[in-house]
Amino acid sequence: MALVKLIEYAEAAPEVRAVYDDIMKTRNVDWINNFWKALANDPAQLRRIWENVKQVMAPGALDPLVKEMIYVAVSATNGCEYCTCSHTAAARKKGMTESMFLELMAVTGLANETNRLANGLRVPVDPQFLPKG
Amino acid sequence: MALVKLIEYAEAAPEVRAVYDDIMKTRNVDWINNFWKALANDPAQLRRIWENVKQVMAPGALDPLVKEMIYVAVSATNGCEYCTCSHTAAARKKGMTESMFLELMAVTGLANETNRLANGLRVPVDPQFLPKG
Amino acid sequence: MALVKLIEYAEAAPEVRAVYDDIMKTRNVDWINNFWKALANDPAQLRRIWENVKQVMAPGALDPLVKEMIYVAVSATNGCEYCTCSHTAAARKKGMTESMFLELMAVTGLANETNRLANGLRVPVDPQFLPKG
Amino acid sequence: MALVKLIEYAEAAPEVRAVYDDIMKTRNVDWINNFWKALANDPAQLRRIWENVKQVMAPGALDPLVKEMIYVAVSATNGCEYCTCSHTAAARKKGMTESMFLELMAVTGLANETNRLANGLRVPVDPQFLPKG
Amino acid sequence: MALVKLIEYAEAAPEVRAVYDDIMKTRNVDWINNFWKALANDPAQLRRIWENVKQVMAPGALDPLVKEMIYVAVSATNGCEYCTCSHTAAARKKGMTESMFLELMAVTGLANETNRLANGLRVPVDPQFLPKG
Amino acid sequence: MALVKLIEYAEAAPEVRAVYDDIMKTRNVDWINNFWKALANDPAQLRRIWENVKQVMAPGALDPLVKEMIYVAVSATNGCEYCTCSHTAAARKKGMTESMFLELMAVTGLANETNRLANGLRVPVDPQFLPKG
Repeated sequence: MALVKLIEYAEAAPEVRAVYDDIMKTRNVDWINNFWKALANDPAQLRRIWENVKQVMAPGALDPLVKEMIYVAVSATNGCEYCTCSHTAAARKKGMTESMFLELMAVTGLANETNRLANGLRVPVDPQFLPKG
Repeated sequence: MALVKLIEYAEAAPEVRAVYDDIMKTRNVDWINNFWKALANDPAQLRRIWENVKQVMAPGALDPLVKEMIYVAVSATNGCEYCTCSHTAAARKKGMTESMFLELMAVTGLANETNRLANGLRVPVDPQFLPKG
Repeated sequence: MALVKLIEYAEAAPEVRAVYDDIMKTRNVDWINNFWKALANDPAQLRRIWENVKQVMAPGALDPLVKEMIYVAVSATNGCEYCTCSHTAAARKKGMTESMFLELMAVTGLANETNRLANGLRVPVDPQFLPKG
Repeated sequence: MALVKLIEYAEAAPEVRAVYDDIMKTRNVDWINNFWKALANDPAQLRRIWENVKQVMAPGALDPLVKEMIYVAVSATNGCEYCTCSHTAAARKKGMTESMFLELMAVTGLANETNRLANGLRVPVDPQFLPKG
Repeated sequence: MALVKLIEYAEAAPEVRAVYDDIMKTRNVDWINNFWKALANDPAQLRRIWENVKQVMAPGALDPLVKEMIYVAVSATNGCEYCTCSHTAAARKKGMTESMFLELMAVTGLANETNRLANGLRVPVDPQFLPKG
Repeated sequence: MALVKLIEYAEAAPEVRAVYDDIMKTRNVDWINNFWKALANDPAQLRRIWENVKQVMAPGALDPLVKEMIYVAVSATNGCEYCTCSHTAAARKKGMTESMFLELMAVTGLANETNRLANGLRVPVDPQFLPKG
């Protein structure tokens, strides 16, 4: 149960509806997911976060599917149920197969393991890994 | 300063040298980085972790560069200096440009932000995101 | 479902009841929340944690509402559902409005984002930020 | 050592200088800290993050000092050295005393402790803590 | 609800059944828990993770109960519900009493607290704590 | 460099010296490590944290070496350099061998890996793992 009211389209103020409309158009969907309905309690924050997502997740030097998979890796690392489910669904829609998903999880798991081995043994960074300055 | 001795090739036992040799051959490099020198204090663990890395990071449904970038995203999320530096270097060697690196960081940062918005507002998962069962 | 029994007042040993009574009196409430009922399986730990909470959350250089909001920020960062819900409720009781809650979440989210940008790019600390020694 | 070049004002492109100028004017300082110099490798991301910081950290329902202290709490929780140092300095500039800083740390530490007690014992959320819906 | 299909023994491929059989034999149980059923979507990963668990959790310099308790401490720190429940159950089966569990949680909570005090105050490591080199 | 002054014994107020004396006597050492010197800026917090450490880390249902190793596992998971170094040193003093340390790291690393596999695949908890109620 959300800690704030989920604002439905029908009851939303015009500035909220404007963002909802842009989300649905940009993503080519006909519904708004709960994340935005929760943020809509603060219309300025709703717009800010949406503009960030739109800019960051757009095609660029990385393709959108790679970006979604990176999002899933971070969300699984942080244990965020909502984001793991929503971005896994988004990645599948963009073409992530079951094999890709399981490899993504394998890399995520392994990185979490070796991060702790490096941190626990306090391994010093090899100078070869640093940019030449 | 590492909390365990870093085992150099010259002083390594044969079972450690065998792993070092395989690392250098597989990666086509002529040196061993500190992470492995630290793990070499327990040759069985050295072998185990190396076999995992070799299997997980090999080309598969995801290409090796995407895997390296996922590794960097997780390492930055966890604040692991060693792994951030070493896997950023590895990703660059595999073709990651500065633009790709900065987009990778942008996605990683944004995911960490929205993970907390979803967790803090306790947004319930939309049923549309779950697999049909 | 809790991994330990939740100890109700009626069945509690005298040393547990003494802590429960102090919690209800200090907070001016007539019920005990589940966190304490779980800790009560170890009466010494129950008392220890309660004494810590009472000391740390008391009015001091920071006012109690600010302290509750800091608690929520940390709990959302760690993804702790129980503490996010309980301390958000406590903060509201102490006067946190919806606007304040949403700004709190905005700062929490942004800090989580820039923490990873700084960690991922390995930005060195500017000497100007360090205390003069 | 940063993993990207730190872009100094003198060598910055006009779009980067425009952001640098706005940072210095908004904060009433005459230098740019390393975080922005690192982000400046991607001018669009530099602008995006700065606009976010400017909007989120402005006075609102919460005062700027409270916001800085929340930022420090999150940064300490995540172990981000850069952000802990920079936002502690910023909070001090806005009036945080040593007593306030130490209480901030006390609350941050305690929240991290009880988050794990609640998560480890899997304490169920009391219905009294949830919004009436 | 899992994001992948849970593969039951009856429908499993021979290579999956071989791992399931080894899990049941090694642990002396007659059922397979959901974690393995989820991993079984990628038989090579299922085998890899199981071989790791079997090797790491076997009796060695540390006894298996201590290992299970360390597992619980990490899982509670990360807020992983599944692993907290499964490894707490495993630790109890190996002899962890309620007193031991509550002390384990107390240490886990305290470590999480002092980790943030050390990180937030940026306490420098005393040279006495480092290995003599 | 610490963000607060490190209070040396010679300059400490009587209430701080009393805690320092108790630390040295309890641990049978003749010096005070930096963690306490930083906390000493707030004598009440210094006393509170020390009383907690003394109570939680004392012999009980778990022996002190096991407690130190749990502390190291949590500190490595959180990436806390100070606590990793100080509690690894403490564990060695209490008898932790190199083999034990490396197994401790292996379990810590593996738990961090499988935590993310369980969280990322959203594996539902098997009812068999929950206490009978």
